[in-house]
Amino acid sequence: MDPLVDRLRERLGAAQVLTEKEDLLPYAFDGTAALRQLPRAVVFPGDAAEVAAVLGLAREARVPVVTRGSGTGLSGGSVPLPGALVLCLLRMNRILELDAQNLVMRVQPGVRTQAIYDAADAAGLFYPPDPGSMKISTIGGNVAENAGGLRGLKYGVTRNYVMGLEVVLADGSICRLGNKCVKDVAGYNLRDLFIGSEGTLGVVTEVLLRLLPKPAARHTLLATYARMDAAAATVSAIIAAKIIPCTLEFLDRKTIRCVEDFAKVGLPLDAEAVLLIETDGHPAAAADEASQVETIARTHGATDVRRARDAAEAVQLATARRSAFSALARLKPTTILEDATVPRSELAHMIRFIEGVSARHGLDIATFGHFGDGNLHPTFLTNERDTAEMHRVEAAMKEIFDETLRLGGTITGEHGVGLAKKPYLRQQLGDASYTLLQAVKRTLDPDGLLNPGKIFDFSEHPTSNVEHPTSNG
Amino acid sequence: MDPLVDRLRERLGAAQVLTEKEDLLPYAFDGTAALRQLPRAVVFPGDAAEVAAVLGLAREARVPVVTRGSGTGLSGGSVPLPGALVLCLLRMNRILELDAQNLVMRVQPGVRTQAIYDAADAAGLFYPPDPGSMKISTIGGNVAENAGGLRGLKYGVTRNYVMGLEVVLADGSICRLGNKCVKDVAGYNLRDLFIGSEGTLGVVTEVLLRLLPKPAARHTLLATYARMDAAAATVSAIIAAKIIPCTLEFLDRKTIRCVEDFAKVGLPLDAEAVLLIETDGHPAAAADEASQVETIARTHGATDVRRARDAAEAVQLATARRSAFSALARLKPTTILEDATVPRSELAHMIRFIEGVSARHGLDIATFGHFGDGNLHPTFLTNERDTAEMHRVEAAMKEIFDETLRLGGTITGEHGVGLAKKPYLRQQLGDASYTLLQAVKRTLDPDGLLNPGKIFDFSEHPTSNVEHPTSNG
Repeated sequence: MDPLVDRLRERLGAAQVLTEKEDLLPYAFDGTAALRQLPRAVVFPGDAAEVAAVLGLAREARVPVVTRGSGTGLSGGSVPLPGALVLCLLRMNRILELDAQNLVMRVQPGVRTQAIYDAADAAGLFYPPDPGSMKISTIGGNVAENAGGLRGLKYGVTRNYVMGLEVVLADGSICRLGNKCVKDVAGYNLRDLFIGSEGTLGVVTEVLLRLLPKPAARHTLLATYARMDAAAATVSAIIAAKIIPCTLEFLDRKTIRCVEDFAKVGLPLDAEAVLLIETDGHPAAAADEASQVETIARTHGATDVRRARDAAEAVQLATARRSAFSALARLKPTTILEDATVPRSELAHMIRFIEGVSARHGLDIATFGHFGDGNLHPTFLTNERDTAEMHRVEAAMKEIFDETLRLGGTITGEHGVGLAKKPYLRQQLGDASYTLLQAVKRTLDPDGLLNPGKIFDFSEHPTSNVEHPTSNG
Repeated sequence: MDPLVDRLRERLGAAQVLTEKEDLLPYAFDGTAALRQLPRAVVFPGDAAEVAAVLGLAREARVPVVTRGSGTGLSGGSVPLPGALVLCLLRMNRILELDAQNLVMRVQPGVRTQAIYDAADAAGLFYPPDPGSMKISTIGGNVAENAGGLRGLKYGVTRNYVMGLEVVLADGSICRLGNKCVKDVAGYNLRDLFIGSEGTLGVVTEVLLRLLPKPAARHTLLATYARMDAAAATVSAIIAAKIIPCTLEFLDRKTIRCVEDFAKVGLPLDAEAVLLIETDGHPAAAADEASQVETIARTHGATDVRRARDAAEAVQLATARRSAFSALARLKPTTILEDATVPRSELAHMIRFIEGVSARHGLDIATFGHFGDGNLHPTFLTNERDTAEMHRVEAAMKEIFDETLRLGGTITGEHGVGLAKKPYLRQQLGDASYTLLQAVKRTLDPDGLLNPGKIFDFSEHPTSNVEHPTSNG
């Protein structure tokens, strides 16, 4: 009935092509959940040549292609377009090489982030990026969204650990970008263009990752504050003391209550802020920095500072932060996790601003996130069936993004634009940059084959021959 | 006589436009010296609006524009094209902001690299990239070439410290890319596309730089080896011990002799290799790592290990490496400094290979460079007037680049492609990537206005209206 499906089955084998509604359902959404769309079919290529073949067949059939891994994204980046083919890379899940001499690992896109961390760890090495979903997210998805995590301040994000990519372009050609050299200035850096491009410019079929030596020691502290301002002053003082902790996370009052109710960590329910701080590195350095951090926290008004004496206690303290989203997500039918991000110096102001928005619109917004890198997660606890409330959510979000941009921030620190942030992108980038983004898309994907309608809408090249849904937002 | 010059004088003021031959001479070449071409005129814009105006006038006059700073580049990137206008950014030399809370500095492109280092240092902060010419090179040039330096292994290169750019595009529009946020995934990363694009995609008019806290301590060691293999074994053992020194440099036998003759550091003339190693960071960590490095060096066959007891002695030891190029450049009329780069694990092999090439072709090639990041500087000591020898140089270079690529390396680690490496680029990138580079150039600079003929030749868009020289190679 669908000649494209027949040809895909012929090329990949029948078992690698799903078309039954019940088989397609798991591929209809990502971590945002609110955005759902059944694809036309789901295919599971086994290598780059099969990816190229799928793109060729889809192009001939004028069907857009949405690439995905585990679907843990939080901006709708891998949500199918109506009638689209989903290209799922989970079968390409091998670690191809761990080269300890050059501190690099070469992997296929379907390898889970946690498996990369574990393989590095087993070799005494360290893969720092730790997105919240790392137990199930894949490295291909992390690259597509340039995923962040809790270690951004000291160690950066996914981009900072990608040395090379193999990418299948819309026309089926296969590019290898980058290599094992720490320094390489031969030609334009296209590697970084594909990182964070959300599946709209090409399909990543191999990733060369940079590793670090595993930090020999880590110290974990949990500091409690009666006032958010005191927590902010602590963070400023830590940076002023020339200490860059590997983790510098916070919870606001609402999150603290939810977490305590959920995980029983022993947080005081009247606290306005909790900071989770970790130092790592050389044993003497990490210990000294932890002691300095403890002193700074106490000097700047922490009502309590707990320091883990062993790994088990460290895990327990970290639970306060790591369970935040799960704790919040239980409360209301719909949880909308945002990731507005501001320069670190503006973070305390931004948290207060969000509290004001919450009060003004009568909305439940809990905020937690990465104090060290200014990456906030205002989390809307709401009900998508309550139309009136959803309108207030929309208005509140607009106010939050406006303020974020006024402070020199970004509408998305680590989740990507996808479908969720499309309406705000132009405001952040300005016309010249936004137009340039569209021009780059048109150059790399003239037919609008790859995940069209994500990040932004663009008018295709006159030669376009791919059918597009009328609206994806 | 030249209506373009008249209009430039009108717009910028007569003092900001040079046209006399003796005034143009200093702008006819860069650090490669062998490549020379007088420009049509040199202009000194004072801000982004003036840059945009110059691009507009040049486009109307169908005259290509070559942007430059101090002209310390080593691949011909800023050498004028015949008849081109040189856009010199040295007047835009202000540090606009040092934001210690967010660890960022905002500067104009004409600021010298050393001035950035010094301003950060005075605030207890650290700007790590240290290209060899940093005392006179400008940050705009560093960004254009993605300059490296001695600290690449631990700290990365210029790219790793650029958070944002203001760029004037070929059509005169002004893009702001990036911000003070450590995490930002809003739209494609165009910032990294401009970094290292050698003035062919846009003109950078402002740079937002990331800073680090200043390392509290540094230890400097100089290890001498009778055999290069022992030096290589030391480097492997340091990495295997999970130590990442901030500097890990080497000199080969020929360089050692020249340096000793020039700088009298006390190097043994029969040594086959010298390693300069620096550890830095927390005082306890840096000291411990230096002791470990010393032990490792001795265990792996160093005939001598000197460890600086104070800053003055550290400077003296570092002189051995830092004077390498100056020492070599005195010997012959023409010095050609290459920067072939291989994965670190292949570096000892590559050094031996270059020795073989040198012997086979009867050429004087001294090699030094960055052992930590595999970035070699085979330095040809020759005479450009000796045509026969220059043909042998060319043949030798081709062999070196072929071997570099066979080992998974790059034809340029930190100098850029410019004019010098153009013939080798396609071989490294492969057809698909090379074609994509050209497509990106065509998208951003459809008329071929910006430094055309650098990095690669490309066929312009049919609407092109800029006069091009017939050959730039």
